[in-house]
Amino acid sequence: MKRLLLQFDSSPHPSSFDQVVAYDGGADRLLSYANVTEATVRDLVHGAIFTRGPKDLHNTAIFIGGTDMAAGERLLAAVQKTMFGPMRVSVLLDSNGSNTTAVAAVVKLQQAAGDVTGKRVVVTAGTGPVGIRAAGLLARAGADVVITSRKAMDAATLDQLQSRFGGSISNVVMPDSSKAAEALEGAQLLLNCGPAGVLLVPQDAWANRQGLIAAADLNAVPPLGIEGIEVTDNGAQRDGVIVFGALGVGGLKMKIHKACIAKLFERNDLLLDAETIAEVAGEISATK
Amino acid sequence: MKRLLLQFDSSPHPSSFDQVVAYDGGADRLLSYANVTEATVRDLVHGAIFTRGPKDLHNTAIFIGGTDMAAGERLLAAVQKTMFGPMRVSVLLDSNGSNTTAVAAVVKLQQAAGDVTGKRVVVTAGTGPVGIRAAGLLARAGADVVITSRKAMDAATLDQLQSRFGGSISNVVMPDSSKAAEALEGAQLLLNCGPAGVLLVPQDAWANRQGLIAAADLNAVPPLGIEGIEVTDNGAQRDGVIVFGALGVGGLKMKIHKACIAKLFERNDLLLDAETIAEVAGEISATK
Amino acid sequence: MKRLLLQFDSSPHPSSFDQVVAYDGGADRLLSYANVTEATVRDLVHGAIFTRGPKDLHNTAIFIGGTDMAAGERLLAAVQKTMFGPMRVSVLLDSNGSNTTAVAAVVKLQQAAGDVTGKRVVVTAGTGPVGIRAAGLLARAGADVVITSRKAMDAATLDQLQSRFGGSISNVVMPDSSKAAEALEGAQLLLNCGPAGVLLVPQDAWANRQGLIAAADLNAVPPLGIEGIEVTDNGAQRDGVIVFGALGVGGLKMKIHKACIAKLFERNDLLLDAETIAEVAGEISATK
Repeated sequence: MKRLLLQFDSSPHPSSFDQVVAYDGGADRLLSYANVTEATVRDLVHGAIFTRGPKDLHNTAIFIGGTDMAAGERLLAAVQKTMFGPMRVSVLLDSNGSNTTAVAAVVKLQQAAGDVTGKRVVVTAGTGPVGIRAAGLLARAGADVVITSRKAMDAATLDQLQSRFGGSISNVVMPDSSKAAEALEGAQLLLNCGPAGVLLVPQDAWANRQGLIAAADLNAVPPLGIEGIEVTDNGAQRDGVIVFGALGVGGLKMKIHKACIAKLFERNDLLLDAETIAEVAGEISATK
Repeated sequence: MKRLLLQFDSSPHPSSFDQVVAYDGGADRLLSYANVTEATVRDLVHGAIFTRGPKDLHNTAIFIGGTDMAAGERLLAAVQKTMFGPMRVSVLLDSNGSNTTAVAAVVKLQQAAGDVTGKRVVVTAGTGPVGIRAAGLLARAGADVVITSRKAMDAATLDQLQSRFGGSISNVVMPDSSKAAEALEGAQLLLNCGPAGVLLVPQDAWANRQGLIAAADLNAVPPLGIEGIEVTDNGAQRDGVIVFGALGVGGLKMKIHKACIAKLFERNDLLLDAETIAEVAGEISATK
Repeated sequence: MKRLLLQFDSSPHPSSFDQVVAYDGGADRLLSYANVTEATVRDLVHGAIFTRGPKDLHNTAIFIGGTDMAAGERLLAAVQKTMFGPMRVSVLLDSNGSNTTAVAAVVKLQQAAGDVTGKRVVVTAGTGPVGIRAAGLLARAGADVVITSRKAMDAATLDQLQSRFGGSISNVVMPDSSKAAEALEGAQLLLNCGPAGVLLVPQDAWANRQGLIAAADLNAVPPLGIEGIEVTDNGAQRDGVIVFGALGVGGLKMKIHKACIAKLFERNDLLLDAETIAEVAGEISATK
């Protein structure tokens, strides 16, 4: 019986990136749908859960993607609402690669720092899908997390984040790179989630900074977000800090993404979102 | 050479249900198209018939689906008009699963009743794609078929049905469930094709009814269409009648659907519509 | 690792013709996209080049198709602009089958005529994608090529053609079939690229014409373009001329198309456009 992966993509084309990784992760066949909305997802889920008996349903799974993570979250909610009792299949949410990227970045920082409990982590420009999830996972692991943003985050978002992941998460406003040094006050770990091609942390703000153990930058498009880090850095020492560039993180992200695809077909009731993807990443590290 | 199934779907997403069954039925690869219309089907058929030599064309086939059976019938006509001489591939029409569901329901009633020749069958709310086909197949098998409907069927539809399937088919108006007992006058078999979640035949209209041998209900959403039948009933005795619920019929429907997919690849000139799908169902029963 | 072919199609449905040939040519899985534009192609290319390491990228490739060759050329330019350094995959451009058809027609005429150097070739109605490419390839092989058209070609188009393919290419106006004999003055080879169902070259214009060696007609819909040639002719002698009909050319076109698909997966930096497809066709002939 073939392992079928239904790709629910909210964008006009299904992501070719997600398709290639799905095949490399072990899906036998892909059933891809573009422009998927909450209104159209129900029939697609019915086709997944009503075609094979419960004992075979682990051979069918759903991947939710697209460029818009908020749309992906709405699709996930609609998918979960449609499945019931044993009539369910495993689901992976990774719109825009946000979940697997966030988990990979967190793993890299944890490997560099050892236990993050009580350590101060600054996530610059951390209000997007990757930053939010990375911040949450780090807080959940015991870190004291600060998210920087151009404008103050609203309290509801912070509350929601706190209640989902637990731990300690706060927000400081950092309007531009001139305030980076100030925002890094007391930082032991630094993760930049700023937009492509925007330098957010000048070299003099982080290089040889007292107490700073590691820094990771997810911006792959020059100018990079943390000045002085190379895009291919993967645990190098620079100016007294262990550093990771976007491609250094990206290699692990790909491994996690593929491992998650493989996991989907082990049972029919797995939900792979940020927290559970982090567990899969932990298993990968443990077996190496 | 891979067995390729082209899925022509009239709906905005290709049916995931049909896709999963296509793979489980033995198609190696699916070429799925959504929003297929009479205007766009010609080029798609050309791609099917002009790419492999006549002796290899049994490895290519077409499945016509979508939620709208009338659209499916128009697509089938357009497909048949495009193919010619030996330049043709086998085709299965099963929009919304109507053909395979109708055939499965008919098989169940036939197995319960033995020969249906001369037996009176009442098909409640039988003017939709499933009801029309089930009524036609039962008439063709020799039954005396009555279709109930809220408003009188027009004569042209009845004539068309009669000329396609032969046998005896008549119509009685049954505006609501209060007239069910009356409509069941003399019934030996009962098949409910009413809409999801609508109770059409109250228990006192059918339970222990003199002469009634079997009853099948295709409504899977509570309240079910025939009060007192369970959705999973599959030949159980209830109140003196052999009964089938929607899931009881659905199991056979899936087997028929898969067998039809497999059949498509045995030759390049098969047309699987209601009557020929009934023959495939007969072969399945014969080999069990 | 599966050989993945991304199909970028500019039309509302991905071409089923191209899909069947892709599978028969050796692609393991197809990732098909319809309505692909220059604006949407970048993300699709990124998914192709950023998911596998450079040493595995020969297992991923891109096919550009659709009914509109000009759109295909724009897509090819956009694809090439997006790939960089070792981050690239092989690409085949064959919108509407124009490239493989042109190459197949040229090969047929070359096989009939031997060396075409200095030979006068008339390409009737040769301003469409097939005609332009066939004319260019013949000029490149040394022939003295004349393209006929209803209205005079503009100088820029001729210049562009000349600079791409080299050799000698000129244009004569042939408003209708009554001027065919005149246009064929001195012709040693004749290729008709006129529209389906239009007779362009009457039999008395070519039959037993002094010096005419071979003639090929790409119109498959009666009335054919060169009167007296049968659609299945494949090197037959008629009226002193070696002749090829559309299906005679079509068989070789299919072989070339499939061979090109197979070629795509041998390396990750192949660009298969008219000239390089002609080389692939040459390799096929050499091994037979």
